[in-house]
Amino acid sequence: MRATIIHGPGDVRVEDRQEPEIKRPGDAVVKVAASCVCGSDLWPYRGAFRTPRPRPIGHEFVGVVQDVGPDVAALAPGDFVVAPFLVSCGQCPRCRNGVTAACGYLASWGGTDEAGFAIDGGQGQYVRVPRAESTLVKVPVAEPDRELAASLLTLSDVMATGHHPAVAARVGPGRSVVVVGDGAVGLCAVLAAKRLGAGPVIAMSRHADRQALAREFGAAAIVEERGPAAAAQVRGLLGGVLADAVLECVGTREAMEQAVACVRPGGNIGFVGSPSGGSELNVRELFNKNITIGGGLAPARTYIPELLEDVLAGTLDPGRVFDVEMPLESAPAAYRAMDERRAVKVLLRP
Amino acid sequence: MRATIIHGPGDVRVEDRQEPEIKRPGDAVVKVAASCVCGSDLWPYRGAFRTPRPRPIGHEFVGVVQDVGPDVAALAPGDFVVAPFLVSCGQCPRCRNGVTAACGYLASWGGTDEAGFAIDGGQGQYVRVPRAESTLVKVPVAEPDRELAASLLTLSDVMATGHHPAVAARVGPGRSVVVVGDGAVGLCAVLAAKRLGAGPVIAMSRHADRQALAREFGAAAIVEERGPAAAAQVRGLLGGVLADAVLECVGTREAMEQAVACVRPGGNIGFVGSPSGGSELNVRELFNKNITIGGGLAPARTYIPELLEDVLAGTLDPGRVFDVEMPLESAPAAYRAMDERRAVKVLLRP
Repeated sequence: MRATIIHGPGDVRVEDRQEPEIKRPGDAVVKVAASCVCGSDLWPYRGAFRTPRPRPIGHEFVGVVQDVGPDVAALAPGDFVVAPFLVSCGQCPRCRNGVTAACGYLASWGGTDEAGFAIDGGQGQYVRVPRAESTLVKVPVAEPDRELAASLLTLSDVMATGHHPAVAARVGPGRSVVVVGDGAVGLCAVLAAKRLGAGPVIAMSRHADRQALAREFGAAAIVEERGPAAAAQVRGLLGGVLADAVLECVGTREAMEQAVACVRPGGNIGFVGSPSGGSELNVRELFNKNITIGGGLAPARTYIPELLEDVLAGTLDPGRVFDVEMPLESAPAAYRAMDERRAVKVLLRP
Repeated sequence: MRATIIHGPGDVRVEDRQEPEIKRPGDAVVKVAASCVCGSDLWPYRGAFRTPRPRPIGHEFVGVVQDVGPDVAALAPGDFVVAPFLVSCGQCPRCRNGVTAACGYLASWGGTDEAGFAIDGGQGQYVRVPRAESTLVKVPVAEPDRELAASLLTLSDVMATGHHPAVAARVGPGRSVVVVGDGAVGLCAVLAAKRLGAGPVIAMSRHADRQALAREFGAAAIVEERGPAAAAQVRGLLGGVLADAVLECVGTREAMEQAVACVRPGGNIGFVGSPSGGSELNVRELFNKNITIGGGLAPARTYIPELLEDVLAGTLDPGRVFDVEMPLESAPAAYRAMDERRAVKVLLRP
């Protein structure tokens, strides 16, 4: 089969790789129907994370079950499935608490399972899925069309990840929301906030194309400023008060400071940008503003069923976040387009 | 009248001071029935905060309304009232959001009001109360007995402040709770967690008398260890998992680290210990454990009515947190007893 392998910074190649097969009784093998490139795939691509040896990359995919191990009863060949961006067991206390991204048996696409068997990356033609029953979510549609498949693919990561800070910041009916970050996750956070009934949603963005998508997703206003000027503009837009909830979808120190500056006393910050650059929160500042802040890796597996329902009902359409589509063989070009910010998010078709 | 004045570190005196009178139309004058010494009063007493000039001290009191200004309709002479530890307006967006401790017109006992008139401290015989209607809470009992008055007095600060991290950490039925800190606030946090229906409440304490009170307030277990050993003990007590919620009631870096160590992935930390020593939260650590953390100055004014109801119904009895009672004239001895940790909390009778 063909699969995308990262060799080092700036060096992503589509190569031949052995087609996976069932290794353990709980495994499934999935034929990938669609995959994509994540902002976090750019970290090793940009050298922010080391790549000590070549490895398969990609952690978002949807596809069709090809084969299952003897312990897999809930899935059968032919089922269309969504794979969350991490493997989880569904049974440990953390999974039972809904925190599947901290599962005691967590495994990553492109890594190895607990028995030491390699796991394929999502940006390839086939993937062996360990703990398939607890990891994959079956979609009750045999052959989703292109548009539906794109929306289903966002449930792997970006839509679930945009939903997480909205849940963490207790977004709900009538609550005003600011979204910091106009990447694919930030845009999905706008959608998530609207879905939860948020009052005005304000998106922070300086890019015309992303502003347009944010508005399409339900943002009532766009703030282009940064720092105190942005907070002042938010205050103006909200009739003299800051936001009830701020969703931080970047992960830099500046973005977190922007979030703190835009939230009202007693308000909530949800964060999902993976923290880079030694971000620290000053407890005194949180204390003084009485802010509640929560977030982390989204428990995508927990959120998928609820989001899936709305995607299937046609009321949630996050697939529009893909502005470019390429064949799998063009993965290197997809990485370049994302790295150079020429694309918000690239969908890959094997 | 007689009132407690702080002159500098270790120097608290009970002195003659002019009896207050109505200065502005929204004022009331209250004759203090009971007051007390707060852990935070020890900061200037210990020199942690500067005292540039002598000032009245004390921010917790209950008493009887003596006189009201022409704009005060909801209170009348003879009313028994609870004063929260801050003056608030009840009308600004922050107050309307329930965050009265961040009121746009916030004033402190022992400070000055927005017009520049001095406000008395709570540890005295009389107090002029600005914005009396929105600040004071009337108690529908004309002459509470000693025991009831003690419980009412805790609503000024310590019980409301113990309630705050429990609310911030979303304590509720069946949720396991660890309380870090065995001061009066920590003990009230145990009571608050039980009141909200928490599953096992574990109190961290190394003092036999405080351990006993924590158990009386509903703690199912006591942890004397610190650091990783404490977290291991919590895990043992909770059947192999960490706590759903941790209430941080100290304010030091060590206490916050202890809270982070004791909370399960996806759990909540509520904090109310005023941060000292440059506490910072590592965002990466919060992210990795998917922790939600919230807290700050308790909006006592918001919480008092709800807590008052239970105190009057006899189902909440936080007055037991006072282990020593002294006449107002002994305020210097009260400060020494608290400073030397010979008393959990001293009640002062003018």
